[in-house]
Amino acid sequence: MIKKRIMAPGPTEVPPEVLAAGGQPILHHRTPEFRAIFAEVCEEIKYVFQTSQPVLTLAAGGTGGMEAIVVNLSAPGEKVLVISGGVFGERWAKIAEALERKVVRISVEYGKAVKPEDVQKALTDNPDAVLLCGTLSETSTGAQHPIKEIAALTKSTNTLFAVDAISGLVACVFKMDEWSVDAVVSGTQKGLMMPPGLALIALSERALATVKSKKTSKFYWSFESALSKLTEEKLPDTPWTPNVSLVRQLQVSLQLIHAEGIENIWKRHELLAHATREAMKALRLTLFSDAPSVSVTSVHSPTGIDSGDIVKKMRAEWGISIVGGQGSMLGKVFRIGHLGYCDRTDVLMTVAALECVLSQLGVPITMGEGVKAAQKVFLS
Amino acid sequence: MIKKRIMAPGPTEVPPEVLAAGGQPILHHRTPEFRAIFAEVCEEIKYVFQTSQPVLTLAAGGTGGMEAIVVNLSAPGEKVLVISGGVFGERWAKIAEALERKVVRISVEYGKAVKPEDVQKALTDNPDAVLLCGTLSETSTGAQHPIKEIAALTKSTNTLFAVDAISGLVACVFKMDEWSVDAVVSGTQKGLMMPPGLALIALSERALATVKSKKTSKFYWSFESALSKLTEEKLPDTPWTPNVSLVRQLQVSLQLIHAEGIENIWKRHELLAHATREAMKALRLTLFSDAPSVSVTSVHSPTGIDSGDIVKKMRAEWGISIVGGQGSMLGKVFRIGHLGYCDRTDVLMTVAALECVLSQLGVPITMGEGVKAAQKVFLS
Repeated sequence: MIKKRIMAPGPTEVPPEVLAAGGQPILHHRTPEFRAIFAEVCEEIKYVFQTSQPVLTLAAGGTGGMEAIVVNLSAPGEKVLVISGGVFGERWAKIAEALERKVVRISVEYGKAVKPEDVQKALTDNPDAVLLCGTLSETSTGAQHPIKEIAALTKSTNTLFAVDAISGLVACVFKMDEWSVDAVVSGTQKGLMMPPGLALIALSERALATVKSKKTSKFYWSFESALSKLTEEKLPDTPWTPNVSLVRQLQVSLQLIHAEGIENIWKRHELLAHATREAMKALRLTLFSDAPSVSVTSVHSPTGIDSGDIVKKMRAEWGISIVGGQGSMLGKVFRIGHLGYCDRTDVLMTVAALECVLSQLGVPITMGEGVKAAQKVFLS
Repeated sequence: MIKKRIMAPGPTEVPPEVLAAGGQPILHHRTPEFRAIFAEVCEEIKYVFQTSQPVLTLAAGGTGGMEAIVVNLSAPGEKVLVISGGVFGERWAKIAEALERKVVRISVEYGKAVKPEDVQKALTDNPDAVLLCGTLSETSTGAQHPIKEIAALTKSTNTLFAVDAISGLVACVFKMDEWSVDAVVSGTQKGLMMPPGLALIALSERALATVKSKKTSKFYWSFESALSKLTEEKLPDTPWTPNVSLVRQLQVSLQLIHAEGIENIWKRHELLAHATREAMKALRLTLFSDAPSVSVTSVHSPTGIDSGDIVKKMRAEWGISIVGGQGSMLGKVFRIGHLGYCDRTDVLMTVAALECVLSQLGVPITMGEGVKAAQKVFLS
């Protein structure tokens, strides 16, 4: 028997209670029963964004949510700044370009976090930019960007700040209202410990004002449609059929998150990330990022080893799904996710299995050194 | 105890086997295990569309799938013909208008099916139309449109024919390849007996050629991206994270559909629809549509009765979710869905409960007459 385990930066494992909710019978979405659940979800989800603003629920993947933000907060021909330091930062740029926005990139070396002064320069050079798009946790490189510092810069400009917090939310410290972030998108298959399929979008007061005033071509992605259904009646509703099962699962995952407490969850992620990094260093491996995210640890593959071989052996022999590199990092890095439904034993077992795999691949490591380093973090 | 039952035209009830699949642990979407499931789904789904063409799986609601068709098969400023005979026909028009296509409506009186000669006239008058959008089963009115006859008309023109088969697929007889339909969109929460959340899109050869040649602004909805991932490697993949749980559920629902056989499923729907209609007539109620769909029966509310009251009592006192009227039909019709995971006993119980509700509301009916009519259909 080889149990299947996920230590990838999403989709992550899902707690049994949340899985069970996914197997519940369908409620018709126009019934008071379902709308009461949806009302609870719409209210409680604010906690994970640390906002008092409305949070929209779209039946779409996270990329769809990113597209929706671009569609609602900018118009074709308008200038959009993009912090591009990995596949997901670059995704903002690709979406905006595909939709005929004028994209100005703030290019960041892969693995690095963007420097706030580079963002400041871009904002100063481009006062006509209507939107700045960034990434909380850049899953492809394992870097975490200084969202708080960037939001402090955009706050006093006319440029709205949109953050892809798809893999970062619930894991990384994130305070939308306190930091003055204008638009945040997340998905369900990461920190929220659920299957993929919902895009969750929170909007600041000034983002809401832009949604109202900016007339762009849209239908399915229309925030105005979604907002009107969210607020017009006694119980919130959606313009199109919501993903009933995922909403039920979200209700349960939010209950779990409330029970643990967001500050405790942030601390747990910090701890798991710290232990993982220490284990990698103890195995004389090099982290890919010098601003490592608490969601994912990206590691240079040892010299002469295709990281894909590590990933394959981890899955085939140990049942553990970690992931390799994307884009230009293909074959060169492997990435261990430690977010969502993930605890200390998951990290210990992953490090131990990784030691076996590296050893079998002929990498000169001392067995047990990685595990010891992680144990030390957990016991300190 | 009042069991909750759905007799709405979607979301429909979900078989226990399919619910259970929704509660299965997450598989990472880049693993051979998941991709083997996805490969099976991509192949087997063709059966329900009756096509040998590729079927795309988008993480979105059905409306998102409709938007994707408009986005990929027409460009802003181009002419799109829309058969508008209800809320969902009109939705095509609203999407196309929102996305700056030039919409020409083929207006159909609510409750009627479009006349092929009216479509022929529109095609002749608008040879520059790149797309004709129609609806297989117009859920809002309960009418079923003659898709086969319309496809025979568009086949010899340069106008592609797109069909919203969201609530019609699997229920109504539908043969994409044999009839020469160019683009078909369906959802999962209807005939496929699943929770909502996936848009399934099948494309004819000439639709695929248009996808390649038409350069329009798109990203998340790009059929080219989805097609390249579907076909480029040994096992099919998706450009964005797929809805893993729904794909697993689709695997199971397709197995059930194959086991029953699509012709048998079509016959079952015909039978359930026939029995429901006969029951309504026996209760001296009037059907809203003279071309009634096999997915849903739409019924005029008895004089002086708000159909919303019938819907509320059915749910509150009998646990059965039927639905009222949409748009201009609000309060005036009630609709009984009999599609997907639905059998003869569901119809019998619904008719019996409806008799009780109508009686309590003071409608002069003879108790048992509706049930008797349905029984007669089932025993003949």
